[in-house]
Amino acid sequence: MKADLDGLMAERGFDALFVTGASLNNPVMYYLANGATVGEGSMLLKKRGEEPVLFVNLMERDEAAKSGLTVVDTGKYDFLNILREAEGNRLLAAIKFREAVFEDMGVTGKVSIYGMSEQGRALVLNNAFNQHQDRVQIVGEYADTIFDAAWTTKDPEEVERIRRVGQRTMSVVGNTADFLRSHRASAGALVKADGHVLTVGDVKREIRRWLNEEGIEDPEGVIFSIGRDAAVGHSSGEEGDPIMLGQTIVYDIFPREAGGGYFFDFTRTWCVGHAPAHVEKAYRDVLDTFNTVVGEMKMGDLCRVQEERTCDLLEERAHPTHRSAPNTQQGYYHSLGHGIGLNVHERPYFGIFEGNTDTLAPNSVVTIEPGVYYPDEPQGGFGIRLEDCVWMNPETGKFEALADYSKELVLPIQG
Amino acid sequence: MKADLDGLMAERGFDALFVTGASLNNPVMYYLANGATVGEGSMLLKKRGEEPVLFVNLMERDEAAKSGLTVVDTGKYDFLNILREAEGNRLLAAIKFREAVFEDMGVTGKVSIYGMSEQGRALVLNNAFNQHQDRVQIVGEYADTIFDAAWTTKDPEEVERIRRVGQRTMSVVGNTADFLRSHRASAGALVKADGHVLTVGDVKREIRRWLNEEGIEDPEGVIFSIGRDAAVGHSSGEEGDPIMLGQTIVYDIFPREAGGGYFFDFTRTWCVGHAPAHVEKAYRDVLDTFNTVVGEMKMGDLCRVQEERTCDLLEERAHPTHRSAPNTQQGYYHSLGHGIGLNVHERPYFGIFEGNTDTLAPNSVVTIEPGVYYPDEPQGGFGIRLEDCVWMNPETGKFEALADYSKELVLPIQG
Repeated sequence: MKADLDGLMAERGFDALFVTGASLNNPVMYYLANGATVGEGSMLLKKRGEEPVLFVNLMERDEAAKSGLTVVDTGKYDFLNILREAEGNRLLAAIKFREAVFEDMGVTGKVSIYGMSEQGRALVLNNAFNQHQDRVQIVGEYADTIFDAAWTTKDPEEVERIRRVGQRTMSVVGNTADFLRSHRASAGALVKADGHVLTVGDVKREIRRWLNEEGIEDPEGVIFSIGRDAAVGHSSGEEGDPIMLGQTIVYDIFPREAGGGYFFDFTRTWCVGHAPAHVEKAYRDVLDTFNTVVGEMKMGDLCRVQEERTCDLLEERAHPTHRSAPNTQQGYYHSLGHGIGLNVHERPYFGIFEGNTDTLAPNSVVTIEPGVYYPDEPQGGFGIRLEDCVWMNPETGKFEALADYSKELVLPIQG
Repeated sequence: MKADLDGLMAERGFDALFVTGASLNNPVMYYLANGATVGEGSMLLKKRGEEPVLFVNLMERDEAAKSGLTVVDTGKYDFLNILREAEGNRLLAAIKFREAVFEDMGVTGKVSIYGMSEQGRALVLNNAFNQHQDRVQIVGEYADTIFDAAWTTKDPEEVERIRRVGQRTMSVVGNTADFLRSHRASAGALVKADGHVLTVGDVKREIRRWLNEEGIEDPEGVIFSIGRDAAVGHSSGEEGDPIMLGQTIVYDIFPREAGGGYFFDFTRTWCVGHAPAHVEKAYRDVLDTFNTVVGEMKMGDLCRVQEERTCDLLEERAHPTHRSAPNTQQGYYHSLGHGIGLNVHERPYFGIFEGNTDTLAPNSVVTIEPGVYYPDEPQGGFGIRLEDCVWMNPETGKFEALADYSKELVLPIQG
């Protein structure tokens, strides 16, 4: 959580953190600017032991003030004049500009840099800046950055925000189920009042409408895929596909607070009308695995222990896994879950890989999402995934779902 | 346009282009992958004179195939085994993985890198990769990248896509005007059927609903700001603000094709019911400036010539500008426009700055958006901006609007 940052900076020998870019789709800037909306060209500087300072264009001053931080108008450094003195050399001007900011703020020593950026541009600027002067050394972090570490646990306010997105997501999921159930079936597919078949595109349009009504958004889309598509991991579903009875629908929805902020991530698998016996059996296997794993997860466990456990449980039930059959395209081939927050995917990681020492910490928020996929079944490809967002309650040392919805496979319809 | 890339690569001595990251919010990846949806961990390699090759996770193969490019499953390089051999050192493993990909594809020489990335992470990886081996040298571009240059002109298909987003935007703008006009006024504000005042938040919720119905999205939000807020450049508008009669509303909408793709950018200024005389005068000044500039812009002009012209016209009409009063917070203080495409803001630039040699090229698509802002007027702050997206028709050498809507200031209401 945020209170960990100064300690992490001290451990890693950082005198300051420097963040560039807009707040949108830039989790480090959003986090340190307390969710204020700032645009391209913004910067944020946090010296160790001090509150961050936010640098924005004059036009953004009112939005930036919502951060509660000290806001500096970048106009103060007169970039156009710096550019003139640099005779139009934009790289040299950017270096001089950054030098002026650091000098003004009294920053020296080791400064770790963050922020989503075109990597080639940042590579050139950061290397050239370091060559040009020696008061500040810009460094980067590759794996396990300060923010990766801070985000593995959430403040109570962050947990509440994720929970609220979850509640709104449940409303959208409930509307989706009601919407499907409200259609009649004809010739093995759902049909609309006008007699046309109901398609994945029709359903997705409604989902986006309900998301908007709930004040949440789906910046990374939504997966609503049926039949063989449901068995192809992250296929998001073909707009024109009809909603057929008895085929698995993988409905994976990962919305975010509107305008940027915290994500939720949630998956259910449905069969409209009825489910074939082999699908029911596989569904039961995934559900049992889900319940066993969530029930057993406890404070301090290595995440990979639960990944191993998931492989055990699914292999016992005769499903190939990424452990028993590396690179398999059948059975269970992704990882059990991931942390969630300002990123859909963040630490802790559950993968079984060399060096993964991530653990289940108090106040962590993670998804648990076992699934099995059989794209090439003779009776028709199918996929199954179940996913909840769970929070480790530090009082009990156990995980609890931040929002819940029925885990029934079959969505019954009229007639 | 895309056909320029090989020539630009030759000019700049690049043997290959290397792009990393998801396609979402990553314009270079989206552009080269022909709009296919690929997720985190994807890579794209384009050798000079050859078609790009796309590298994705197995789970994404169906979506990746929509690029029409050769798709390689990254599983082929067995990252987990590389990580094991690197004893869990993720940086070393990432270097070895990249080395395997380049060797497999026969890439040597100077490779220019692109893609939105956490800049600190990319800085460490790219520098360490260069130190580790000497067959490939990763380089970056700071200003005027190959893509900045390619995007200054658009293929006919790109122009059509921007035009279609524009047409849909016009539908949303028309709905917004109708919606405002459908309300009655009471005590100087618009009120809803339930007797409550209509707020900016109410209007924005409807705007998002219409965007969804049109199959477009607003990933960067929408500006709908009234009164003093309208005078604070990029204030996006306060949700709780009432829609007052006679106050300027700056309505700046910049939607994108749903799920990523091309943007449109459009602004109108409205006063509901009536407009004060001093606002009408300033509006006329901005509209005259807009019409004069768009009428005069022609093929081959330096963009900054039109920026100077805008300052001339507004200064003649007694408005301070960024030229006559650097760092002013009154009058005209942003630039005249910008290119638009997969980015809301891209080259060409109109700013008057040292070294800006951008010109108005055939098949360029740019916004033109003069505006004046007076936050501290004694009669109440107000702001005015007018913006169209215009395309240079190479047949005529003149710019034409890709979509249009009335430029009337006053939105009349009943009663």
